[in-house]
Amino acid sequence: MQTVGEVGERAMIALFTAAAAERDDADGDVVIGSGDDAAVLAGAGPVVVSTDTAVAGRHFRFDWSTPEQIGARAVVQSAADIAAMGGSLSGLVVSIGCPPQTPVDRVLALNEGMVAQTHRFGGRVLGGDLVSAPVVVLTVTSLGSLDGVAPVTLSGARSGDELAVSGRLGGAAAGLAVLSAVEHGADPALEQRFSPLVERYRLPQPDLTQGPIAARAGAHAMTDISDGLVEEIVTMADASGLGVDVDSAAVPRPDGLDALAAELGVDPIRWALAGGEDHELLAAFAPGTVPAGWAVVGTVGRRGDGPTVDGRPVGDLRGWQSFSET
Amino acid sequence: MQTVGEVGERAMIALFTAAAAERDDADGDVVIGSGDDAAVLAGAGPVVVSTDTAVAGRHFRFDWSTPEQIGARAVVQSAADIAAMGGSLSGLVVSIGCPPQTPVDRVLALNEGMVAQTHRFGGRVLGGDLVSAPVVVLTVTSLGSLDGVAPVTLSGARSGDELAVSGRLGGAAAGLAVLSAVEHGADPALEQRFSPLVERYRLPQPDLTQGPIAARAGAHAMTDISDGLVEEIVTMADASGLGVDVDSAAVPRPDGLDALAAELGVDPIRWALAGGEDHELLAAFAPGTVPAGWAVVGTVGRRGDGPTVDGRPVGDLRGWQSFSET
Repeated sequence: MQTVGEVGERAMIALFTAAAAERDDADGDVVIGSGDDAAVLAGAGPVVVSTDTAVAGRHFRFDWSTPEQIGARAVVQSAADIAAMGGSLSGLVVSIGCPPQTPVDRVLALNEGMVAQTHRFGGRVLGGDLVSAPVVVLTVTSLGSLDGVAPVTLSGARSGDELAVSGRLGGAAAGLAVLSAVEHGADPALEQRFSPLVERYRLPQPDLTQGPIAARAGAHAMTDISDGLVEEIVTMADASGLGVDVDSAAVPRPDGLDALAAELGVDPIRWALAGGEDHELLAAFAPGTVPAGWAVVGTVGRRGDGPTVDGRPVGDLRGWQSFSET
Repeated sequence: MQTVGEVGERAMIALFTAAAAERDDADGDVVIGSGDDAAVLAGAGPVVVSTDTAVAGRHFRFDWSTPEQIGARAVVQSAADIAAMGGSLSGLVVSIGCPPQTPVDRVLALNEGMVAQTHRFGGRVLGGDLVSAPVVVLTVTSLGSLDGVAPVTLSGARSGDELAVSGRLGGAAAGLAVLSAVEHGADPALEQRFSPLVERYRLPQPDLTQGPIAARAGAHAMTDISDGLVEEIVTMADASGLGVDVDSAAVPRPDGLDALAAELGVDPIRWALAGGEDHELLAAFAPGTVPAGWAVVGTVGRRGDGPTVDGRPVGDLRGWQSFSET
């Protein structure tokens, strides 16, 4: 089994370049792709840009996910930030840090996961870097376009807006709870029985086309739900200076989540409110303008009211994050 | 002394956002800066993008450089890739990974170094990420514009072209050799006596405006010298399929480099040819079109000839890199 240290940086980057080039014939937006000092993307309008880093042992574990899932998930995490502005992914660059003794196959699988997920979002891997690091570290920087819509900020919510989410919440936290429970002695069959939830942790699949849809529908404010719904309404309330209230019963939960919660003796609402990493979108819309497929989960209130759940302060729902327990 | 773990990610990011905002009033290109899900940069043409990662202990050491220098150097490294395409830096995003016990002041100083250097290049820090990692890891992703010129690739060299460099080479490698010699028992006064070379290691200051100047002068091929001149001519020869020959005596060396080499008993030409991290530019121009300020160091030869120094195969000058000895 060859290691990255044996193969060397230049030969690895040539492999990455070849993997990116394999899928590259169809897209006229890329002037220069992977393999030069920098890539060049044709552009005729504003560029949306965001960067995110995932660290082995902290944000993912190789014994809980395949390398392809880990790579794809890093892309979802970064691309969701582009969608949260109302943008569509154009392309991205990737930096991979890993110990020299990392098997080449593992790094190629990480890269394959990133390339495949980028293409599922309609974008292209434009280049990257590979460096020696004590653990695997993935940094994905996404570039997106707005296709003529104005970017949707965190701060634009208005009193009376309806608050809505683009999909079901809590699945990633529930899936992580399954893996954690099995590690701590629960019946391993739990993982098979609740595999759709575990898959939501391993590779969340938000419909990021809802970002541009929300922007075209005139969304006043938007963000992606990476740290949990409550954490995001705190951010949105801070940014706008307005109250933001969530009706906890209205938050859509994935199938199986309530059954799993009953089995593990926890409150399913807590996963839906405080579980992160689903990367669905949260947006504030003028009443009556919420797009099809979005679920209304609350309202934007008055200046100075702050964030609440069912009319009460968010309290200990804040700050619980899916990775604080790993 | 407060640590990053005590202050927390959100409060740290608010400090970064404030540091970026302090300098942000003058630039109309940024629609949305640091602090939202993603930044938005106004754009009317192609976007040049490149990402680079630097890892503590591998690419820099806190006992050899200040945090400000380490941050600034990460920006130079990434921005040089934009210049090497003929582009100018518009802005960049930064990901910082660090152990929770890292002092807040150290991370703020790293960030300050990045912000200050970005502004020296005429760009803006657009946002970033902060994560927990076993060692300090900096990933800088730079975005640039081409201002109407065609991007200059690695592969465009033509037979008969003059090969030129934008500045003096070997200084970073010589500066590193000073620090390494002192660590291994040389007189500490060596560092003071050769401080201009040590500063070239700590913070190389290439004139990156030479990238767009070279592009406007019609450069056929260009790259930045990050891995040493010989490594770069190997890459350029590979990419074009042509011979690329360097006249070693013609490569400009910084003041003091020959004196230091004599004192340490090494060949100064070796630093100039094989020392990396200077981040000056290397380009191939049609004869007679080399811009003022560039030094002609060689020629582009015939198809199939490969890279040579003084007409001889590059041999062991290849693969020596400034960090292989740390």
